[in-house]
This record gives sequence, structure tokens and C-alpha cells, in this order.
Amino acid sequence: MQTPISSWADAAPRLVAVAAGREPADLVIRGGRLVNVQSREVLDGWDVAVAEGRFAFVGPDASHCIGPDTRVIEAEGRYLIPGLIDGHMHIESGMLTPAEFAAAVIPHGTTTMFTDPHEIANVLGLEGVRLMHDEALMQPVSIFTQMPSCAPSAPGLETTGFEISPEDVAEAMTWPGIVGLGEMMNFPGVINGDPKMLAEIAATQRAGKTVGGHYASADRGIPFHAYAAGGPADDHEGTAEADAIARARQGMRSMLRLGSAWYDVESQITAVTEKGLDPRNFILCTDDCHSGTLLNEGHMNRVVRHAIACGCDPLVALQMATINTATHFGLERELGSIAPGRRADVILTSDLRTLPVEHVIARGVTVAEDGEIRVECPHLDWPETARNTVHLGKTLAAMDFRIVAPEGRNAVTVRVIGVVENQAPTKALTAELPVVDGVVEGEGGVCQIALVERHRATGDVVNGFVSGFGYEGRMAIASTVAHDSHHMIVVGTDREMMAAASNRLGEVGGGVTVWKDGAEIALVELPIAGLMSDSPAGEVAAKAQRMVEAMAECGCTLNNAYMQHSLLALVVIPSLRISDLGLVDVDRFELTDLFGDTE
Amino acid sequence: MQTPISSWADAAPRLVAVAAGREPADLVIRGGRLVNVQSREVLDGWDVAVAEGRFAFVGPDASHCIGPDTRVIEAEGRYLIPGLIDGHMHIESGMLTPAEFAAAVIPHGTTTMFTDPHEIANVLGLEGVRLMHDEALMQPVSIFTQMPSCAPSAPGLETTGFEISPEDVAEAMTWPGIVGLGEMMNFPGVINGDPKMLAEIAATQRAGKTVGGHYASADRGIPFHAYAAGGPADDHEGTAEADAIARARQGMRSMLRLGSAWYDVESQITAVTEKGLDPRNFILCTDDCHSGTLLNEGHMNRVVRHAIACGCDPLVALQMATINTATHFGLERELGSIAPGRRADVILTSDLRTLPVEHVIARGVTVAEDGEIRVECPHLDWPETARNTVHLGKTLAAMDFRIVAPEGRNAVTVRVIGVVENQAPTKALTAELPVVDGVVEGEGGVCQIALVERHRATGDVVNGFVSGFGYEGRMAIASTVAHDSHHMIVVGTDREMMAAASNRLGEVGGGVTVWKDGAEIALVELPIAGLMSDSPAGEVAAKAQRMVEAMAECGCTLNNAYMQHSLLALVVIPSLRISDLGLVDVDRFELTDLFGDTE
Repeated sequence: MQTPISSWADAAPRLVAVAAGREPADLVIRGGRLVNVQSREVLDGWDVAVAEGRFAFVGPDASHCIGPDTRVIEAEGRYLIPGLIDGHMHIESGMLTPAEFAAAVIPHGTTTMFTDPHEIANVLGLEGVRLMHDEALMQPVSIFTQMPSCAPSAPGLETTGFEISPEDVAEAMTWPGIVGLGEMMNFPGVINGDPKMLAEIAATQRAGKTVGGHYASADRGIPFHAYAAGGPADDHEGTAEADAIARARQGMRSMLRLGSAWYDVESQITAVTEKGLDPRNFILCTDDCHSGTLLNEGHMNRVVRHAIACGCDPLVALQMATINTATHFGLERELGSIAPGRRADVILTSDLRTLPVEHVIARGVTVAEDGEIRVECPHLDWPETARNTVHLGKTLAAMDFRIVAPEGRNAVTVRVIGVVENQAPTKALTAELPVVDGVVEGEGGVCQIALVERHRATGDVVNGFVSGFGYEGRMAIASTVAHDSHHMIVVGTDREMMAAASNRLGEVGGGVTVWKDGAEIALVELPIAGLMSDSPAGEVAAKAQRMVEAMAECGCTLNNAYMQHSLLALVVIPSLRISDLGLVDVDRFELTDLFGDTE
Repeated sequence: MQTPISSWADAAPRLVAVAAGREPADLVIRGGRLVNVQSREVLDGWDVAVAEGRFAFVGPDASHCIGPDTRVIEAEGRYLIPGLIDGHMHIESGMLTPAEFAAAVIPHGTTTMFTDPHEIANVLGLEGVRLMHDEALMQPVSIFTQMPSCAPSAPGLETTGFEISPEDVAEAMTWPGIVGLGEMMNFPGVINGDPKMLAEIAATQRAGKTVGGHYASADRGIPFHAYAAGGPADDHEGTAEADAIARARQGMRSMLRLGSAWYDVESQITAVTEKGLDPRNFILCTDDCHSGTLLNEGHMNRVVRHAIACGCDPLVALQMATINTATHFGLERELGSIAPGRRADVILTSDLRTLPVEHVIARGVTVAEDGEIRVECPHLDWPETARNTVHLGKTLAAMDFRIVAPEGRNAVTVRVIGVVENQAPTKALTAELPVVDGVVEGEGGVCQIALVERHRATGDVVNGFVSGFGYEGRMAIASTVAHDSHHMIVVGTDREMMAAASNRLGEVGGGVTVWKDGAEIALVELPIAGLMSDSPAGEVAAKAQRMVEAMAECGCTLNNAYMQHSLLALVVIPSLRISDLGLVDVDRFELTDLFGDTE
């Protein structure tokens, strides 16, 4: 199923013959200004010759490699830069399958991605990872898979569809497209010597592969050092210059992130641009990009442009999106530079600062020109188990969302998840709410939230309250994208509509639906694992855009309302969250009661 | 047999516990000025804590890692630099076994070596490589083995003791200490697509290991590009700045060499210091060091000092002897920097430019202090097959060295190997020599040379003439170090003495012997493979020094007389050489006749 590319070992006889002029190349690009990321130079008037999908000759004159059937592209003085690499990302964040994600980013010049299918791992376990891995290998660009490390993210506080074990990790390390372990988010576990976490890291190290890090704390003292001693080789959770410096000093690579909602490049790249640290240990990545960002703003080209706009030398910025990343993953002789033997991934661009992506070649084949994709990105035949993951166990009704007050009360104090504009952490609020017919009713900006179990068809619904969205009137919004366990999160002002929205997602196999005044006003179908669509990015982005508009029509005033919605069950980020096991006090890492005055 | 060091995976629970302050470290070095080769900074007042032979904590204060049994070293403001790495070298060049070589270089701060046992491979084949590999793994420092690629160096022009095949290479790739393929010297073979050479490279690449290069040509045009396309990942044969730049641009690492007789750093390091190329792809190495150099001048500390003296920033020079090398061989998370998880190899020094090596720690153990070794370097129990490699087949006599003239001549024109002061290439000279009693006699600076077969006891002796040494009187010198096939080279003015010298080496199992006026005046015993001694470097260096003096006493006027002697059978370097098959015209790559006028 893998898009064929010969290994360098297999291709070598032909590569040597082409370089020596004994056989013609498949492709020659001539007259370029070659960006040599190894030496950090621009080499004027250099040519490249390609055979077997790899560079065979890179030098001042490839005339001797041209035969009658050789395709010749005239660079006409344009820059040749290596295809761009995303050092760490989650495909699911685009709500797209690997094929459609690839189709969306190839025109932006991304030819290699290091992806952690952490979301699907929570829904479908190792089998889900395998499906992502398999579709990744079918693509005309290079998509490497990092084996997810932390499912569940918070053992004991949530129930995922499947769990990942050290044995799963060891098994995955034998697959052809697995390049390492995905971000080790359980940093308290590593610091405390949790044997399961250390076993996953050990399985990865023994396989000679790279352990991804995730140290989401501002404490750069002893805990950070203990984390580094555990083995993670990189980290993309830094937000300040001192974070970036601390990671490099510990022998980790500092991944600087610009995603749809992450802005961590500007604050950290000064470690190189101002403090003068050796740039080799800095890598650019996106982590999470929505389909709209991919369509409207770009992908790694957006990140490199941004790094340059932040004052980074263009050649250094390009190194951070090419050779630095390849070296990090032990692939520097496979890709990431325009040099003999490497995969022939190259971009033609007229300007090194604005980086217009005019022509994209991957493995020697033109994959995009002038923003248009020129190849097919093959789809896996996703099995029914992956397309049928919303198991509600019953048809939900309004009464499933009733919150019954303690006997004999006509008002109660409840805990409320307080959403904060532009911040991932929530506030642990309380509110005094009225009781009507024995049922607690939201009011004054406090509406209901429910976590609907969807992996095991238990029919369980955990109810609570949330504030900060600004919803008004009769509405509900439901989503099966509900980090990290990906049950279903329903928020609404009306229990009938909450039930309707939930049932609707059961019907379409997952996604996001917005209901207002008794009718569905927006729907994004995400039939694969309830997380992804196999429709093109344009369609998904349009529906997602409509969804955002619909949320606003329900009164929502937040900048990133949908992201806030989908993170309400992320029980590793403070302070108050919801899971299938109940309300979670993340500050204390324990379950807590809805009723604040019952303690 | 391997000196035990736990893998990071196995050590991680303790490393994390030490870093977190839950368990005490084995060793703490405090109050140092830490040279951080990842970030290229000096960090004042940093401490390191070591456990399980690896760094557990590297930071501003390791107090929390100190327990009652923790050894504490006060750095008192001295610099902590990573143990030095030699990126490419041949242990045999020191005439020492791996154990004795290690003992000689550890006091100079070398804690890691990448060694290519190419010489013994010619004598003992894969089994010889295995013995070197095994003794290497017994040492208290890290000695990685590159599997020799080219034995014989010149197929068809010489007969080695054993040959190396692609199957041998594939087999060696499974051994624990093998890090890659040794220098691919047969660069014409690679360029011409020789299937055997490409198969050896492929076997190495498929094992995920590094292919060493050796492109000994000044032609940086198409042949060089074809060589790069074949897969070699580094090269240490560059001699000019343009060579260094060309290699980096082709995605190879440029190894800059300062050996006993190689001086290629000064001419190439300007690629970094003047041309401003990214230094990450430049590596320092020695290639070949005599025991005298090791004793009197140093090892990698000598190379780093020299690079600094050539204008290289000390931190950049140190990177070239530490992290750059580790990264090249895929070992950047194993060694080469002072960072958590890496092997605790560290040097204390008071000055970053003059680099006095005051205290050397390898794997957390003090291995040398103030120039004195503090540990044992264990010897392998070398088998008889390795100690008994000089097989002459008979006792040689003067008549074996007689060169019979064509019938009826009283003078003949012969080809003469012309040794040139300070150059490896010889000249193809001719001389008119007298015939006495039917035998050609050397005169006027032309003396005899003989290649005595010693691998298969054939009793064969190939005779010829050589000039340039300046030998006078009755003398002979014989050596079983005779690159690359390592038969025995005998040079002399007297056939009786040539026979005596040859027989003497048969008696002692190889080495070098100098005879004058009927008596042996110097002897270096090299009983292991006829190449190495298992005596300490000091003894070997003293005997080698005496040998050089003895050569001078015989009239020799050359600077590097012994090296010139031992290279006379190196049939890959122009112009005229000798092998067990006859006189070799290296310019034409063919055997030629001794008598110049018989053509």
C-alpha cells in the first residue's frame, strides 16, 4: 500500500550511474538558487538531478544527467528549498484523515510530517493508530507516525475507548512508519518514576527511536530536570524564551510551535536571534492546525514565514523546518536537505522571506503547482469499526440531562466550569441556581454541560454546569471531539435540544452539531472515529466555519468557542473539567461533587 | 566481557530518582564552568550528578543529589567539557592493542573512539575484526568499531591474508560494538558502480548504520558527486578548504584530520572560520597516530588545541570533537554532551584554549588525573592464530633475494621505486645497474626491496629496487607492517642481512627489525597480527624511537623513514609499488616488469 520509493541502498546503483553521467535522470531542475541547509548557504545556479525519487546529483551543472526522456524544469533563478517538515503535529486536529490532510498541506510545501495520532488512540486504541499509520504510508509525501504514549491521559479520572500499554508501544515500534513515541504528556508520571511510563520510553529507546516530550509546566527547576532524565528527546510545550533555552541545555530539542491557536514561536525564537544559542536544536512545528488555517493561512510555510518575521535569518528558519527536524528523528540521510541520496522533496520559490510556494516536488514528482495539488492522496478503506464509534446505548431524552437537586431544596450552590476567553485553563466557579420541580436549572449565563459516554454504550450521562460561552435562547451544541477521551460533550440551555443534538451525532457517526429553537442549524460530520472527515479540507472547513457562525447565532461571544468546547473534558489542564466519571478537580487531580454545599 | 554500563532505558528509574532528589547520586561535580555543546554556551557554576555511569542531573545546583556516600568533586571554577571523541582512526597505527591504545589516550581526555581495524582485517579477516571489537568493548572508555570495507584494497594487484565480503559486512553489523562501515577506500569502485562495494554500503545502510568515506582525489567534479551518491556519509581525505566545503554541500560530514603525519585541519577549517559555513558538519579526527605522538603530544586534545590555534572558536572546536561526532554516528543521546542520560564522560580543565587535561571521568569513574591513568585497560586473551601470523614457509637465505639478470647481460635497466621526502606517492624511476655473476646489484643510492609473502607460507619473495632512503654499508630493515596487505617488506643493501632480518621477524612473530653489519641493532616486536604490541605505549614508543635512530645509523636521511618503508606495498597510491604479485604500476593499475628494457 505504501507509495513506492526505493531505499537509498536499493537505488544506489542508479543514483551513482546518473551522477556519473552513465544513465539519464528522471528529472533535472536547472538554474536554481539552491538553499543548502547543511552548509547554510545559497548556491547560485546549481542544478539537481533526480532518479528513483531521490536526488542523484546536486551541483553546478547537471547537463550530463539529461537524456531524451528526462523531464527538465527551468528554475529561472528561483530558490530551491527542501520540502518543509512539521516536527510534531496531530492530523486529527484538522478534522481530516491523513489523506485529506496531506492534500491540504502539500500545496503549502509540506512534504514530511511527524504525526502523533493520539486522538484516535483514545477511541480505537492500537488499531486506530495502525489505520492512521497505514493511510499515512499511502501518501505521496512522507508521513511518519509517533506512537501515542498516553491513553488515557489521566488514568483514574476518565475512561477512554482503549488504553495504550507498554506492550502496544513495543509492538508499534516494529511497524515501518513508526518513528518514535508520541509526546509523553504524563510528565508527573515520568518525574515520579511511574513504571508504565518509563516502560513505554524504554521500549522506544530500545528500538532506537525518538521519545517525544510534553512538559506543560513553567517550573524549570528540579521536576523539569527529572523529566529530562527520563528520556524525552524534545518538547513543544515551551512558551517563554527561558523554556526554549532550558530544553536545549538539557540536550532536548526545543520545538517552537505555531498552530491555529498556539503562538509560541515569537516568544522563544529569541533564544537564537538574541541570545545567540546554536540553532541546531530548535525545530518548528504546528502541533494543531484546523482545516480553516490550512486553507487560508498555510501550514509549515506559515510557520517559517512567521519565524522570519520574528527576526530569524531565513536560512536558519529553513534549517529549523528541514534538516534540524530530520536529524532529530535520525533521518538526516533520508530527507530534509537537497543532497545526494535523500528523498527528492523540493520547493521552488521566488522569495526566501515571503516564501511563495510555487512548485512542490515530493520524491521527484510534482505534487503541487501554484497552490493546486497535482496528485491523488489515496484513501484507506476505513473499516466499519472506525466508522461506527458513537455508541450511545439508547436514544437519549431530555430527562437524561436533568440534574436532580438534593431533596427539599429550592436553590442549590453548584460547581461551574468557568470558561475563560483565550485561555485553555478553566476556572472552578460556583453559582447559586434555582430548583424547579426538583431539578436544578441554569440561569444568568450558566448553562448545562453533559458528558455522554460513547465508547461502550453504557448510556451514561454525566451532567454539570458551565459558564462563559454566552449562549442564549433554546440551544444545544454537541461534539464527539472531546479531548482526550473523546466521549461526547454537549452544552446547552435546553435539555430537549441537548438530547436531540446527542442523538443526531449518534446517527451520523460523530462530529459537531448545533441546534437552535428545535432545529439543527449546523453540522460537521466526522464519521471516522467521530474525529475526522474523509471529505476534502475545503468542505470540512466550510462546515466548520458554518458551525462557528451557528455558535455565534446561539449567542456565543468567545474567540475560539469550538476549541473551548472540545477541551472541556481535558482533565489534565486546570481547573475544573468533566469526564465520564464525573466532575474533575484538576488542581487536586480528583473527582469532585457537583453540589458545592454538600461537602 | 564488556565493561558494564546500563543502557539509558535500564538506568532511567535511578536517573529520574536522582534528578528528582529521591535517591543520592554516585558522583557529583560541583562549581564548574560547564561547556554546553548543545547550546554552545559556558554555564557558570553548574553542577552535574552521575548515577549508573550516566549524567542524571545537569544544572545550577545538585545539592539535592548528594547523599552520605556520594563522591563529591569540587571543580573550583574549572571548565567541565565533554570527553573528547576521535571521529575516525586506526588503532593499529599506534602499534598498540586497543587496550594499550586506550591506556595511552585516556590521560589526554579521549573517552570515545570510532576505530576502523582495517589493518588486522587484511591479516586475519573478519576474525581479526572481531578480536579488536571484543577488546574494544572491554575498555573503560567507549571504542566503537567501523567494519573494514576494503580488504584487499586493490583486488587483483595483491593477495591479502583474508578478504572482506559483503556477507562479512552484513554479519558484522549485528555485533554490539559495530557502528558502521569503515572508510570506503575503493572510490573508483563506487563511482563505477562496483556491485561488491555497493553491496557493502547497502548492508550498512540497511542496518541503519553510518558509511565511512575515503575520497582521496582532488577532483571535486563529477566523480566526487557520483561517490557521494553511492552513500558514504563522511570523508577525512580532504586537504583543501574547497574539499571541506564540497563535502558539507553534498550532505557528507567533513572530517578534519591531524594525525602523526596528517596536517589537514589548518587548510580546511577556514571553511568555518573564514567562509562561515555552519560548523555542525565538521568533525575532528586523527586517522593515524604513532605511539610517540600519543606519549609526547597528545591525542584529540592535540587536535582541538590545534583547531583553536588555527582560529576556531574554542566552543566550536569542542563541538567538532564531541556532539558533532556523536550526532554523525547516531549517538547524540548516548554520549558527546554533558546532558541527562548520556554516558558521564567529562574532563576538568583550567583553560579552554590550552586545554590542560587535569581530570578525566568516563562513565562516571575517574580514569585519569594529571596525565596518569587511574584504571586498568583489560587485555583480551589473544588466541594463537592472532599471535602467530608470520608464516614464511621456510628459512630464507641470501639467494632468495638474488635478482637474476636476463641471460648474457652485464648491465640492465631496472624500474626503481623512488621514495620522495615528505610525500606518500612514489616516483617510477629507472636505473642502469651492473650485473655481477648474473645477478643485478644495487649501487649509487639504489638498494634492494623485497616483498616476502607471510600469510600463506608460500615462501615467495618478490624482489625489486628502491631509492631515496640513503642507506649505506651493509644493512637491512624488515617490517610486517606493510600497508595494506601486510606481508613483509624488506629493504637492504645486503642480501645476507635481508634474509636475517626476515627470519628474525618470523621468529618473533612480526614487527620491525633493523640490521647493520651482521647484527640486529633495533627491534620492535609486534606479535599480534604482526601489527601490534600488547606492551604499554611507553615501551613501544621507546623501541620505535630506537628503530628510527637505527635507520638513521644505516644512513637514512628521510623525515618519516619508517612510514615510507611501511607504505611501499600500498598499491593504491601512485606511482610504483611492490606486492606479493610483483611490481605494480599504480598509475595504470597493473603489474609491470622489473626490467625496464624488456618491454
